[in-house]
Formats: sequence, C-alpha cells, structure tokens
Amino acid sequence: MSNFTEHTITKAVVERFDDTPDPRLRRILGSLVSHLHDFVRDVELTFDEWKFAIEYLTRTGQKCDQHRQEFILLSDTLGVSMLVDAINHRMPEGATETTVLGPFYVVEAPELPSGSDIAGGMTGTPLFVEGVVSSADGMPLSGALVDVWHTDDDGFYDVQQLDALGGLAGRARFRTDAEGRFQFWSIMPTFYPIPDDGPVGEMLKATRRHPYRPAHVHFMIRAEKFETLITHVFAADSPYLDSDAVFGVKSSLVADFAKEEGGTAPDGRSVAGPWRRLTYGFGVKPAATADRAAETA
Amino acid sequence: MSNFTEHTITKAVVERFDDTPDPRLRRILGSLVSHLHDFVRDVELTFDEWKFAIEYLTRTGQKCDQHRQEFILLSDTLGVSMLVDAINHRMPEGATETTVLGPFYVVEAPELPSGSDIAGGMTGTPLFVEGVVSSADGMPLSGALVDVWHTDDDGFYDVQQLDALGGLAGRARFRTDAEGRFQFWSIMPTFYPIPDDGPVGEMLKATRRHPYRPAHVHFMIRAEKFETLITHVFAADSPYLDSDAVFGVKSSLVADFAKEEGGTAPDGRSVAGPWRRLTYGFGVKPAATADRAAETA
Repeated sequence: MSNFTEHTITKAVVERFDDTPDPRLRRILGSLVSHLHDFVRDVELTFDEWKFAIEYLTRTGQKCDQHRQEFILLSDTLGVSMLVDAINHRMPEGATETTVLGPFYVVEAPELPSGSDIAGGMTGTPLFVEGVVSSADGMPLSGALVDVWHTDDDGFYDVQQLDALGGLAGRARFRTDAEGRFQFWSIMPTFYPIPDDGPVGEMLKATRRHPYRPAHVHFMIRAEKFETLITHVFAADSPYLDSDAVFGVKSSLVADFAKEEGGTAPDGRSVAGPWRRLTYGFGVKPAATADRAAETA
Repeated sequence: MSNFTEHTITKAVVERFDDTPDPRLRRILGSLVSHLHDFVRDVELTFDEWKFAIEYLTRTGQKCDQHRQEFILLSDTLGVSMLVDAINHRMPEGATETTVLGPFYVVEAPELPSGSDIAGGMTGTPLFVEGVVSSADGMPLSGALVDVWHTDDDGFYDVQQLDALGGLAGRARFRTDAEGRFQFWSIMPTFYPIPDDGPVGEMLKATRRHPYRPAHVHFMIRAEKFETLITHVFAADSPYLDSDAVFGVKSSLVADFAKEEGGTAPDGRSVAGPWRRLTYGFGVKPAATADRAAETA
C-alpha cells in the first residue's frame, strides 16, 4: 500500500518517472516535482489556495488565442523569461545582449526591401532606423534575416488592432546587404502597459505592480552559422527603464533615438517636421558546434 | 538601469512584490518565484524547452471545460494534490483520512432519500453502501450532507457520458439520519484510466506511466462545526492499489466490497444475482476555532 506523508510523497512521485526513456525529460520532471513540492511545503498551501491556483492557471490558458499569449506574459512578469534568456545567452565580447521575445511575435511578417516604410496604418513621429549586423568579432554579415516589430505611439502592436489598421503595421522582415546593413522607416513607439485585462493584470493589480514597459523596438536576427539573436533596443528618454514590468532592460540595449528637426534624411527623404533616428550595431554569436541539448541527450 | 544576471534576477523579482498589501499573497508569490527560478537554474532550461512549457500549459488550460479539469489532473499526477491534502489534513485519532477531490466533482447532485438507487442509466453488479458518520471521538452525527460519486463498470463517470446516460448517474447527495446513518444502492465501480487524451496523457505516455486508478467510491461529507471530509473508499480487490496514477491510496481507505450471492439485502430488497456490499464508518474532525488562514492574515 502507499501511505505517503507530506515528507515521503516527493520521492515516490519522482520515482514514478524512473522509466522515462528520454533522460533529459526524466531530469526536468524530477526537478520540477521536487521544486514544486518544496514550494507547497514552504508556504503550506491551503486547499482554497490550491483551488485558486488551478482556476488561475485554467483562466490563463483560456485567455490565449492566436494573438494573445497569457502564459508568456506570466512567465515574463515573474522574471522566468529573462532568467531562461540569461542562462542560455552567456555572451562573448562583441555580441549584442539578448532580452525577452515577448508575446507579440505571433505572425510571420513579409520580407520588404531595405529602406521601406513599415508604418502601415500607424501614425506618429517618423522614425528612421539604420542597423548593421556583424559577427561578434566584427565581420559584417550579408543576407542576415532581420525581423522587427514595435508598438504605435499609443502603445499598441498591430496584432492588437488589426481591424482598425487594416493589416500588419510596425512589423516587417529585412535582409542585410553586402556590408551587413539594413534600414527602414516607421514611427516612434512609446512605452506601454502589457495587456492587463487578464489573469496577469489581476496579479499585477493585487500586488500593486505597474504594467508598463519602456519604449522599444524588437529585433530578431537570424544568420546561418550564428545563434539567433532576440533582443530589443530601448529609447534612452523613455520612462520605466528602471522598472520594466518584464525585467527586460539591459543598459547595453538602451540607445539614443536622436531627435531631428525636419530636413533631408540619410536616405534622401525630405521630412517636414520632427523625426527620430536610431543607429545601432548588432553583434551575433557563432552557433555552438555541439549545443547543450545534444550534450545532455 | 537593471542589468540582472541569472544570479541576481530572483531577488529583483521578489522585491517587485514588496508593496503587495496582502502579506499571505506576498509570501506565496515570493516563494513561488524563488522555487520556480531554482528549478529553471537547476535544469538550465533551454529556450525550446521553455517554449514547450508555455505551449503545454496553454493546451492544458484550453483542454478544460465544464466537465473536464486538466489542471487538476496535472496537479494529481504530479502528486501536488495529495501533498496539499497531506499538509492540510493532519488527522486526529478517529478521523477518516482524506484523499484527492479529483476532477469529476463538477456538478451539484440532487439530494435523495437514504436508500435510493442512484445507478440511473448505469448497468453492472448492484452495490449496496451503508455508511455511518461520526465525530472523531465517536458521536454519531445526524443531518450531515454526504456527496457520493463513482464510475460505471467501464470506468467512466456520468459527466463523461451525459448524452448516453440521459442525465446524472452514480452521483447523489444524502443526509444522515438520527444515528448518523445513510445508505444507497448503485453499481460496482471499476478501476479506470484518468482521461489521457490530453496534455496529461501525453506526459504519462512520454514517461511510460500508466493512467489507472484503482476502483473507488468518492465521498464528501459536510457537517456544521466539522471540517469537510473529502475522501474515497477503495475496493480491496482492485488492481492498481499500489500504483494509483494520482498517488491517492491510503491503506485505511481500502475496504472489502463484500461479494454476496443473491438473496435479501439488509434493506429488504430481493436481489436475483451476485451483488456487492460496502460498510464503512466515517469520522470527521472538528473545525479549528481559528483556521490557519486567519492566523496568517
């Protein structure tokens, strides 16, 4: 018979995974059960708290759809996403630091010619972005695939307002040229609250945490033989740089979105009013010859 | 700026909860973040594994509906439900041991007169149940509310086959009489697999765990001034008593479902063929004068 106590049950559950064929899965589940049980014992979780947790997780899953990922928000706001990021991206000199993917990379954007204006239905202060992608040791990389996405000047992504915008906006893909360069026009994004009308917002309200993220542009850069770089560049004059709701800010990722006053932009465009200009160099890290997944398999 | 490393981020996240007005919530979230981060560091969770976890939790939430609670199944199969049970039910002498609620207490059953046959659309070997409810020190309790629910002889609950059965079956509520007694007829339940066509089943298959629970009848007993008792009584001749998929078996909850051969049952019913008979005494624990939630508030 199996008369488990609060002290013996953990070992019994971990042993139930002994026949798991994949050693990595066995290791993960054993560790998960141990830490989860330690948590329950640590706080002496009550039955009502357990019921609340079950309902909370259920509502979190049911809040997800093709344009909303509430479990990523939960992972982000509990610092889990940035921890996973830190563990998996111990960066060499010259490589750009990484940050969270976030929940808004939910659609494949079209590839556009460098220099395109991707503002689509979004209006606001024009922003000109010029980037260069190099290997960590400084060699420019041509043909790298650069995904960009950002909010409008009210703090909403295109996927939160597709009907109003009539399609994707502030989101595209570019290829770097022979010198590793890409450039595009869009509009200046702003700081914004993460979606807080769901279970994650409920947690933030109950704990008196604000839901804001400082203004940023997302970049995902893929090049053959290099690790995919997932990062943001944050605007140095944005509020909330010190209290990002998802713990994503790193000082190396904060850049001057320079304020320009009309005139002729670097690509020859004539701009009537104020505009902003971001210049940023990205360094990508060579892919490991044997990655950790292979080592542990 | 906030340049968190994999070693400093946990403290930063825990501190973000410093302004939480409810001290119990602050304690739970602080402990949850610490243990969750320890798990991620312990296994050095990869980005792909994190993505899988996000998708797995999302699918688990989306598998839930009014008759299916996949997160309870997950909690049950990871031993969390029984751990919460053990922590919250340190039982005095004379009190019946508790076990998991399980995911099938999802509808309010009607209250029926003691002695009713609750088999409804279910067919199988007749089962006669006679119970008595007492306080832990042996005083019979009249007017206690006794919820019972169990599977049919194929291992399915009524809520898994409502259309076929035409309504609830193997599920009802009774009141104890002046001597604390209740009795009812139904059919003998069987061992059964927990629902394994969802994310929990996927976990069980990947880890070569079987999904079976030994045959049992659920009881939930509520009486004023006593703690609600949630338990099962397991059939001593059932398979899987030693490897219940949800770790719910305790030896004190295993009872003889006696095999009878026709004749006249204790309530005067004439039974043509074989039938089973369960007699069980339940002891309930006085409610604490100040419960732990009040102590910690």
